Amino acid sequence: MAKSLIEVFKQTTYQVGGNGKRNLKVLLDSLEGVDDSLESDIYGKGQIIEDFQRKMADLLGKESAVFFPSGTMAQQIALRIWCDRKGVNKVAYHPLSHLEIHEEDGLKELHHIETFYLADSHRVIEFDDVLKLNEDVACILLELPQREIGGQLPSFETLEQISNYCRQKGIKLHLDGARLFEVLPFYQKTAAEVCSLFDSVYISFYKGIGGIAGAILAGEDSFTEESKVWKRRHGGDLISLYPYIISSDYYYEKRKDKFEQYYKEATELASLYNSCHDVFTVPQEIVSNMFHVHIKKPKDSVENVLIGVYEESNIGLTGYVKEVNENECSYEVSIGDLYESVPKEDLQKAFELLDEKLKNVN
Amino acid sequence: MAKSLIEVFKQTTYQVGGNGKRNLKVLLDSLEGVDDSLESDIYGKGQIIEDFQRKMADLLGKESAVFFPSGTMAQQIALRIWCDRKGVNKVAYHPLSHLEIHEEDGLKELHHIETFYLADSHRVIEFDDVLKLNEDVACILLELPQREIGGQLPSFETLEQISNYCRQKGIKLHLDGARLFEVLPFYQKTAAEVCSLFDSVYISFYKGIGGIAGAILAGEDSFTEESKVWKRRHGGDLISLYPYIISSDYYYEKRKDKFEQYYKEATELASLYNSCHDVFTVPQEIVSNMFHVHIKKPKDSVENVLIGVYEESNIGLTGYVKEVNENECSYEVSIGDLYESVPKEDLQKAFELLDEKLKNVN
Repeated sequence: MAKSLIEVFKQTTYQVGGNGKRNLKVLLDSLEGVDDSLESDIYGKGQIIEDFQRKMADLLGKESAVFFPSGTMAQQIALRIWCDRKGVNKVAYHPLSHLEIHEEDGLKELHHIETFYLADSHRVIEFDDVLKLNEDVACILLELPQREIGGQLPSFETLEQISNYCRQKGIKLHLDGARLFEVLPFYQKTAAEVCSLFDSVYISFYKGIGGIAGAILAGEDSFTEESKVWKRRHGGDLISLYPYIISSDYYYEKRKDKFEQYYKEATELASLYNSCHDVFTVPQEIVSNMFHVHIKKPKDSVENVLIGVYEESNIGLTGYVKEVNENECSYEVSIGDLYESVPKEDLQKAFELLDEKLKNVN
Repeated sequence: MAKSLIEVFKQTTYQVGGNGKRNLKVLLDSLEGVDDSLESDIYGKGQIIEDFQRKMADLLGKESAVFFPSGTMAQQIALRIWCDRKGVNKVAYHPLSHLEIHEEDGLKELHHIETFYLADSHRVIEFDDVLKLNEDVACILLELPQREIGGQLPSFETLEQISNYCRQKGIKLHLDGARLFEVLPFYQKTAAEVCSLFDSVYISFYKGIGGIAGAILAGEDSFTEESKVWKRRHGGDLISLYPYIISSDYYYEKRKDKFEQYYKEATELASLYNSCHDVFTVPQEIVSNMFHVHIKKPKDSVENVLIGVYEESNIGLTGYVKEVNENECSYEVSIGDLYESVPKEDLQKAFELLDEKLKNVN
């Protein structure tokens, strides 16, 4: 039987995306040399959790921060708090927000919050979309970058306009910053500078940071204190969260200064893709460590092409391809630690092969 | 300044309760010798999580099982599913149920489930309490043992009566089995035998098992599948839960055959307490590894007495004392691995000191 794309991908010597395998080594590396007498956090208290929360609050320029097991939990809670404060159970976000498509409608099923869309599903939210919003919402959520459309970004000026407008109108602005570190090189801003435009901020530790799991929710003291009550209600106030906290801190320190490099590498890789026949990236101009590759050929043909490329070049470009329509398919690329170890000549050769093979697909 | 009870307790050579410190060694021990190439579970899929869920389902005699980060999450979800199935948002449980007093009303705030009490707060739920329940509830939750009243237990015959009755009446029966392993020696039953009386079961891995965190929810396939949807809604479907799964399995294997011993040791320790002046245990007859110690003296006096005992005997009995009223105080004792290493003579001496010192409190 012919091998599948994922099988051939896993056998390549070099993979261009990500930080490597999600195996136990990720945890073990983060624990190397730790003092085994260090006491566990206990239900949100203790040195391990309090120190990390303080560090992240300072980094994000907020009064305080709370460590959560997941962003799903942290963000629903953020929106719930803002809705309760205003007495309005309505929020607005992008139609492809994580909350809308990946959380089994937790926001609606658990919190009974009504959602309104800003922008359409192919582009980012612009100031005009906010102006045209015809609903009294408690909160607007912006995701930077907008992951499901290749990690596109609004301009920083747009963010400032939206932020100013929301403050005037009494609408809270929440940042889905799952990939916040990934966009700082493009904006040429610090995390605190971006976060200053928002009332509440969530960041993740297993995207670009490459940790195991975990999230931080930051804001004013009264907000984070309230979030702890909801964290307990959700079942997220675990007796011990330290396996996630220690690994989050370890990988944050390991990668915090690498996002400029990832951004440049993503730009380089995207230009290789854009030089190929019937291939384009979304976005065209790269703004983070990620983008989507679109190929105007049928999914099955592209899979066969990629298998051929991997076998001849030993370079793995993607482990999957998703159908857009019968004549187009796509996949996501995120640059992490692995890219720098890929020999440039081999990579060049892989793209020459890709271009050539795609031309021969009719 | 005089030292506090907890300070002196921590300096004693031997502590009679628990499995030892909750420090990083607990995690590191569980990871010793693991294969670092083992792949992480990914959003509830993969060998690590699926194997453990299968193992626990078999142990509990249920079709399937789902690993959760916490029991708070698992149990709210269990009750929600049963309420949805029946179209009745009402459940009944003990007035000192974990859901009622330790979860910031998550069941009510997130799931809008109305709760009714069975029994009063000083005793366990008996069959008669169920018979007298004057509400059409979707589910009854029984906690075995009833932790907040010293870990008391109904008889096994009572459980059978309640189970039969609930099946006749179309009421689901859910087991809060946070300390299920702890009561099997008293009942002289297997976990599966106890669980066969219940439609859904939760067990915990950081009580007697002594793991880091984590819970299992088990039942029929249609129930556990539905629970996975709610797990995602709650924000508990983490990309990686393996730090908790591996440690849960490790400590389950390490301690699964020790609960008979803990039970006997708890019985022995309780009889030492009950031989002291103005001291009694709840329950009087020990039925698990735990009990509450009540001392009919003011809290401050008892703390001073205990400090004296610890300093003279080097044995730590408890790190805290809770006021019941101005002439009575209490604390909880749970027996784990530490008890067996306490020299019997020293322990005897500690109780002689305790008895003598309590007599001198007026």
